[in-house]
Amino acid sequence: MLELRLVQGSLLKKVLEAIKDLVNDANFDCSATGFSLQAMDSSHVALVALLLRSEGFEHYRCDRSISMGMNLGNMSKMLKCAGNDDIITIKADDGSDTVTFMFESPTQDKISDFEMKLMDIDSEHLGIPEAEYHAIVRMPSAEFARICKDLASIGDTVVISVTKEGVKFSTRGDIGTANIVLRQNTTVDKPEEATIIEMNEPVSLTFALRYMNSFTKATPLSNTVTISLSSELPVVVEYKIAEMGYVRFYLAPKIEEDEDETKPQV
Amino acid sequence: MLELRLVQGSLLKKVLEAIKDLVNDANFDCSATGFSLQAMDSSHVALVALLLRSEGFEHYRCDRSISMGMNLGNMSKMLKCAGNDDIITIKADDGSDTVTFMFESPTQDKISDFEMKLMDIDSEHLGIPEAEYHAIVRMPSAEFARICKDLASIGDTVVISVTKEGVKFSTRGDIGTANIVLRQNTTVDKPEEATIIEMNEPVSLTFALRYMNSFTKATPLSNTVTISLSSELPVVVEYKIAEMGYVRFYLAPKIEEDEDETKPQV
Amino acid sequence: MLELRLVQGSLLKKVLEAIKDLVNDANFDCSATGFSLQAMDSSHVALVALLLRSEGFEHYRCDRSISMGMNLGNMSKMLKCAGNDDIITIKADDGSDTVTFMFESPTQDKISDFEMKLMDIDSEHLGIPEAEYHAIVRMPSAEFARICKDLASIGDTVVISVTKEGVKFSTRGDIGTANIVLRQNTTVDKPEEATIIEMNEPVSLTFALRYMNSFTKATPLSNTVTISLSSELPVVVEYKIAEMGYVRFYLAPKIEEDEDETKPQV
Repeated sequence: MLELRLVQGSLLKKVLEAIKDLVNDANFDCSATGFSLQAMDSSHVALVALLLRSEGFEHYRCDRSISMGMNLGNMSKMLKCAGNDDIITIKADDGSDTVTFMFESPTQDKISDFEMKLMDIDSEHLGIPEAEYHAIVRMPSAEFARICKDLASIGDTVVISVTKEGVKFSTRGDIGTANIVLRQNTTVDKPEEATIIEMNEPVSLTFALRYMNSFTKATPLSNTVTISLSSELPVVVEYKIAEMGYVRFYLAPKIEEDEDETKPQV
Repeated sequence: MLELRLVQGSLLKKVLEAIKDLVNDANFDCSATGFSLQAMDSSHVALVALLLRSEGFEHYRCDRSISMGMNLGNMSKMLKCAGNDDIITIKADDGSDTVTFMFESPTQDKISDFEMKLMDIDSEHLGIPEAEYHAIVRMPSAEFARICKDLASIGDTVVISVTKEGVKFSTRGDIGTANIVLRQNTTVDKPEEATIIEMNEPVSLTFALRYMNSFTKATPLSNTVTISLSSELPVVVEYKIAEMGYVRFYLAPKIEEDEDETKPQV
Repeated sequence: MLELRLVQGSLLKKVLEAIKDLVNDANFDCSATGFSLQAMDSSHVALVALLLRSEGFEHYRCDRSISMGMNLGNMSKMLKCAGNDDIITIKADDGSDTVTFMFESPTQDKISDFEMKLMDIDSEHLGIPEAEYHAIVRMPSAEFARICKDLASIGDTVVISVTKEGVKFSTRGDIGTANIVLRQNTTVDKPEEATIIEMNEPVSLTFALRYMNSFTKATPLSNTVTISLSSELPVVVEYKIAEMGYVRFYLAPKIEEDEDETKPQV
């Protein structure tokens, strides 16, 4: 028996919007500690990890750990039918091949039940070791989304370079080049507007903008984004979910033969 | 000579938006009592009835009853050129094969005349007898529109079931099932937010969501919608037009071989 | 060495949006007096003239007059990456085949450099003589845009007729005819809402609505538009750019064999 009641149901709607374009089918793993997901994107390049801790739910009952395979597109269709102020409850009976999403309006005058078939999905859970990163950038998530969108209008890849003074995003395309520099800035009115750089050593890495732009679908989940960079590791783009957990995206850097060349070689 | 002056011209714009997708060509019938229309949709499944009573117009002159055949798409194109605050006057000379829509801006600084050719349209006026309904549901029109849109993302048909406690909208599709229950609720702050059920006997009927969604194009005309249901009769979905009349949509229920099956049989 | 710093960078963004659909490639001419452009549209029917006077820039350095060929679509892509509150600086080194657009956020925490390749574009600068016009209409730019859009839903051409009392915009199409009359009106609360007619003699001229609708892309640049009409001259549709200059569009009238016929002859 599984019954997870989330008063701020809009969070679950936003989580699905954040990951459904990247991942088609995935197993949601439910245990006593929380509701989580780990999945590769459909082209097996990026990895998504979601955690919603049990303490973040108003009511959390999970008698035994189970894994529920869901089509995220269909799940998103159902969650779109929940109002933004609705309470969402996820329910599944032991051994059932369906999951039920219940939506309650704040006034309790409208109660909806959406039942979805579960799928059998093969998946192996990757262990993601804790790692030391060369540089960690925390910045406003809307600014990161804007930069990725702007650069994608010029080129296909972005070089992210971090120094103590700031972080530079660069691209190159047929029509020209673009460099956007954000200065470290901790003296802002609102803490979520700060750009904070923790750097052990300078780093400069190249990524496909297509994936970065997919990751920014998570922007509504958090005012800030944290980008952790190391030359030997996939970048981690993390959106914290207030008091509950996170969505993290992992993407391996592109290896460039010529460091000056931000466009892929043909 | 016909001259109908409507100070709240936006009403006529909304009426056209409500019906133009359902009906291509139709006769507008003008008599001393009002401006009306009755037409089948282009696939001859649903019926639309419109009434704008003469008392609702600031000036209403109709020397003799006439029937004016119009293409609703073209009429809508012209009415879209009226500002939302414009006064609209419909004019036609006796025996003329054109109708003129005059738009006056509130300041009278902009006067527009749009002249449209009339059409000869064969139509028979159906007598719609007053009927007793098993159940009548009055609810917020935006909520009804939301429910029809949400269910259409899951299935093709909706089962509407009414009991004294509430009204249930259900559907079933490839990805799962959905049930939305609205409770009777008369103790709301604003009367237009109430859900009121008058029931003589319980009723459960199946309808094509495609048509229901077309009907909800009339939502901007009224805060509430009234749904009248009887097992032997077409459903009536009515949007009142303040102090002037109504737009009513009629749709026959689907006959299901298996009551549990909300999807059409193949 | 060229360096033009424009504090109100959004103006340059709006200028590009105003002209980029009409003109693909054009030379920007930069001299001590200002930054200007003159170009035919791609079908060689309409002419665009832009002037941004040097006094309107916060900093204006242009050591020698140069002409920079740019693809306006690419330039627009880059300027879209500037924030609406950004300061924009246009920079070019002598003899360089590139131009750089620098965007500074108001807080100076984000600095972007976009470098675009220049093009060689053949162009001849047309001398546009000062002329006397039969009639000059000044009216709200949003109203002019609305009228051109509305008429384009009915017909392909517009007849603009000016008398002392007002200006009439007419069209004719398959579905009917439309006449929109604006009265001269100088007693309005806000000066930009006035419709002012200076007339030496009545004039009635026919224009392609397709071009008129392109010109109205400049609406965000100015609250008012000035339309200068003469039977022997192209119409001038002018949008002033506050304290800096203007965008002007020139379009030759259509010659109609039958004055009553507003549709092109086949």
